[in-house]
Amino acid sequence: MSADASPNSSSVTAAPVPGTPDPALLEDLVAANRILSDHGVLDAYGHISARDPGNPRFYWISRSMPPALVSAADIIACDLDNKPVRPGETRLFFERVIHGEIYKARPDVMAVLHNHSPSLIPFCNSDTRLRPMVGSAAFLGEGAPVFDIRTVDDEGDLNICTIPQAKGLAQALGRHGLLLLRGHGAVAVGESIRQVVRRAIIAESNARQQLQASVLGPVHFLTASEIDYARRMKPKDPERAWQLWKQRAMKD
Amino acid sequence: MSADASPNSSSVTAAPVPGTPDPALLEDLVAANRILSDHGVLDAYGHISARDPGNPRFYWISRSMPPALVSAADIIACDLDNKPVRPGETRLFFERVIHGEIYKARPDVMAVLHNHSPSLIPFCNSDTRLRPMVGSAAFLGEGAPVFDIRTVDDEGDLNICTIPQAKGLAQALGRHGLLLLRGHGAVAVGESIRQVVRRAIIAESNARQQLQASVLGPVHFLTASEIDYARRMKPKDPERAWQLWKQRAMKD
Amino acid sequence: MSADASPNSSSVTAAPVPGTPDPALLEDLVAANRILSDHGVLDAYGHISARDPGNPRFYWISRSMPPALVSAADIIACDLDNKPVRPGETRLFFERVIHGEIYKARPDVMAVLHNHSPSLIPFCNSDTRLRPMVGSAAFLGEGAPVFDIRTVDDEGDLNICTIPQAKGLAQALGRHGLLLLRGHGAVAVGESIRQVVRRAIIAESNARQQLQASVLGPVHFLTASEIDYARRMKPKDPERAWQLWKQRAMKD
Amino acid sequence: MSADASPNSSSVTAAPVPGTPDPALLEDLVAANRILSDHGVLDAYGHISARDPGNPRFYWISRSMPPALVSAADIIACDLDNKPVRPGETRLFFERVIHGEIYKARPDVMAVLHNHSPSLIPFCNSDTRLRPMVGSAAFLGEGAPVFDIRTVDDEGDLNICTIPQAKGLAQALGRHGLLLLRGHGAVAVGESIRQVVRRAIIAESNARQQLQASVLGPVHFLTASEIDYARRMKPKDPERAWQLWKQRAMKD
Repeated sequence: MSADASPNSSSVTAAPVPGTPDPALLEDLVAANRILSDHGVLDAYGHISARDPGNPRFYWISRSMPPALVSAADIIACDLDNKPVRPGETRLFFERVIHGEIYKARPDVMAVLHNHSPSLIPFCNSDTRLRPMVGSAAFLGEGAPVFDIRTVDDEGDLNICTIPQAKGLAQALGRHGLLLLRGHGAVAVGESIRQVVRRAIIAESNARQQLQASVLGPVHFLTASEIDYARRMKPKDPERAWQLWKQRAMKD
Repeated sequence: MSADASPNSSSVTAAPVPGTPDPALLEDLVAANRILSDHGVLDAYGHISARDPGNPRFYWISRSMPPALVSAADIIACDLDNKPVRPGETRLFFERVIHGEIYKARPDVMAVLHNHSPSLIPFCNSDTRLRPMVGSAAFLGEGAPVFDIRTVDDEGDLNICTIPQAKGLAQALGRHGLLLLRGHGAVAVGESIRQVVRRAIIAESNARQQLQASVLGPVHFLTASEIDYARRMKPKDPERAWQLWKQRAMKD
Repeated sequence: MSADASPNSSSVTAAPVPGTPDPALLEDLVAANRILSDHGVLDAYGHISARDPGNPRFYWISRSMPPALVSAADIIACDLDNKPVRPGETRLFFERVIHGEIYKARPDVMAVLHNHSPSLIPFCNSDTRLRPMVGSAAFLGEGAPVFDIRTVDDEGDLNICTIPQAKGLAQALGRHGLLLLRGHGAVAVGESIRQVVRRAIIAESNARQQLQASVLGPVHFLTASEIDYARRMKPKDPERAWQLWKQRAMKD
Repeated sequence: MSADASPNSSSVTAAPVPGTPDPALLEDLVAANRILSDHGVLDAYGHISARDPGNPRFYWISRSMPPALVSAADIIACDLDNKPVRPGETRLFFERVIHGEIYKARPDVMAVLHNHSPSLIPFCNSDTRLRPMVGSAAFLGEGAPVFDIRTVDDEGDLNICTIPQAKGLAQALGRHGLLLLRGHGAVAVGESIRQVVRRAIIAESNARQQLQASVLGPVHFLTASEIDYARRMKPKDPERAWQLWKQRAMKD
């Protein structure tokens, strides 16, 4: 959650630097920060990154700051060991290890979000699994897994600050699109920034709806065949929501 | 939920074209899109249509776009086979089959709404029926029926994209004013745009109130005679709410 | 809930007309309409009135309109038979009989509110009584009574439109400060406009808090002696909230 | 909750007056009033104070007014017997005895907040303890204690207006960071204004999340070792939230 002032974090990496950042990718990453803040998925904390398409051993992420205030100039490149490419960068997220370890473990993943969504926390601390209420939430599958940091080490503030913790998290994530963290928050991944944003917003509303439905009695979730279908097929017209969300978020 | 780019969707229909659109009807349809967005009944998805009063084999609906952004120029005419009247229209809602099949099955219906209201989803996925808490919700009768798309076919993203699916939906709707769709959303119908908007907004608040009441213990719903009375009589002064909602929504 | 177009409603009453309206009372009544709209206690429907201090057989109330739009020019005088003082007034609330009958039954009451607060509806349709969670809600006493219109007549839209219905309501109100109406809403009364506004806003938040507390287990309400104390004593500094609410509501 | 007009409250204290107020402390205290109003932790009532670092027998607090309207000119100094330093001050909070008694009992405490947070009230009136859901709420420990004013005296409006009541409250607080008051609200304390604000905002969201989680089934709270860790260690980068909250609150 914090700025990392440790001396070696500003050391120059030996890896080849990624080329000039893709303006479209930067624009999407800035928009994602704003949209997720606008929807209450991110508050003062949390971060979203995007893997560099041309240099898959690097990812782009903002400096340590509130996501609502991020602009293109705040986006920097890190290698998969989470070292910043440019020397002298010191305002870095402690928990950026989450990003590097997931990109290593999941070559298919092109964007990673870590957040502390208020609607997801109840499911982080419960044996009730978060399961899909509607077609657009089918990525939740048979239920989002929950990572318990105690499976790695037992004492701390529950933040993911070490490589072993991040490796354990990536293992718990497996092939899933969303992972809940006991007493902490969530991680969402996807094949693009826009898919990750979409998943995070849908997960929030799904959590609220599942909670309400459980007050009414047994809940009917998506069937296995409906979940399978969504794994094989693209969603219809996801761009319509992205454009509307972006228009609203960039106005603020 | 999406734009339909299939080639035959832009073919000119053989049916007689409806006359010049009624400006008052267009104004109501635009206002309905804005009001329903303003109340969270519609978000980036969902659509509302109105049957042409002078040409009942045609209906008016916006192109595929976020309802909050709809203006009069975005409204087009379709026949009851959901073909656009004007050649070359390609930005069309996939799920517009819902509109055509309901207008065919229900000659009394002059407006149709399809949406994914967050407060209704819990009742879509529950055996607890949505029932009227207050007089203005009497149109819910003994409880809104729930349509399960599996009664038509078993695998897909739960969207209503085919004629058989839309026919099944219209059959489940029967003579009701509101139909819930398992894992998906809802359909509201009525004798006018304004009545449909009113029903959708009341259904939302009724759902929230019924959910809260069920936390307190057994819920006392409207009686059968109160429901019957509302079926025979007009509501008192519904225009007062419409004018206030419109004033607020058009300001945004 | 509606405008009354019946011919005799515009007839001139034989009763003595009240003097020039007190500007301070009018200002409070306008502010009350705005504050209650601002807090979601009133929406397009509902109404608040104030008895004329100098002519206690008359009360002031707005014409039939959304409370959020009320200004001083919209306030008219009625006698306790709910006839407007000025000839030709036709835009009148149907349910104004509530006001006349309560003022007749309760000489201590100087202001009456009828509304359909969303948070109160669950308690209107439940056997669980609305009871005070905090000191400022002590006026709820051992629990707000619930009026069932079926004790007067059995079929209708649940609105209070006749003298027998309003008399039944006033009887159910008794000496209470708040009455819930099954399947309908609520009535709040008090010794001033400001007290009624305060009671209505507190009742709303109390309802939400009691509902949440009941999820946690048995709820500890105010004790009988705490309720008795509040009946004998004035609240501390109620003006501070009124001034803040007014400042915010009049800015809109 | 109210202005204290008793004659001796304006008498000059014999204690040495604190030096010129620290501008940074005043700025934080004003910002705290605005931030807490912005988050709904404070409404028209409630108050936050800060102990004078150079004169620990004095504290700074606003005059009796809505916290949302507080500016630097409204902040005054009181001694630990809650007497204002400057003669003639009459607009004082009745419940300021809370502040003096806590500062006497807890030399480590540098800031005190008393509020009536809507999300906390359910836990004030329940046997279910408010317990930490996430790492940042670890200060709640094994559960926030609840003070019942009946342990001091039995009849009143539940406000803390006397020294014995405030002493009882301070005793119930013990070494905790948050105390709930049955039928009333809460008190938060800390080593700085910013820590108290942070604790109050986190307590609110924790309460909402715990309530929701309890709907899903048994709740997994922080472990004893995680609570212990948080007691020994500083949180990571709390300034990021403070700066964002302040920026938003001061804009209003």
